[in-house]
Amino acid sequence: MYCILVYDINEKRVAKILKLMRGYLNWIQNSVFEGELSKGMLDELMFKAGKIIHKEEDSIIIYTLQNQKFLDKLSMGIDKSEKTSNFL
Amino acid sequence: MYCILVYDINEKRVAKILKLMRGYLNWIQNSVFEGELSKGMLDELMFKAGKIIHKEEDSIIIYTLQNQKFLDKLSMGIDKSEKTSNFL
Repeated sequence: MYCILVYDINEKRVAKILKLMRGYLNWIQNSVFEGELSKGMLDELMFKAGKIIHKEEDSIIIYTLQNQKFLDKLSMGIDKSEKTSNFL
Repeated sequence: MYCILVYDINEKRVAKILKLMRGYLNWIQNSVFEGELSKGMLDELMFKAGKIIHKEEDSIIIYTLQNQKFLDKLSMGIDKSEKTSNFL
């Protein structure tokens, strides 16, 4: 499934979360990742993230779509992503 | 259409952008907004945002879906949003 992940994490834990996310998704913008993941991989990512974050202080939201074709993307300003998105 | 908007804006302009976004969308998390907007309202929002941001430094990405039913949402940690989302 296609995933858009956004996080709001205390800076003490940001480096760990960034490292984890980069192993699964593409970095798009400050605290935003995107990518295609199987349900199993997403569960794995959430399990690992759950061991890093402090649940009373940090927040991670993951939007998922079964098919990327339902999603459009507009952007303004500079492209901060590391990889060019395969749509837009 | 349903919109997820994420921004990465120089802190000098964050207050202005926040004020603008709050007039159109629901605040979900640090630098993330969501909500239903017509094409006309989205165009208006982008036009106004374009007058605030510095295009060589700031970034706004807007994901849009024709129908919110294509979207699922998972979250971990605390809910930082001002309004409870109408799905999840």
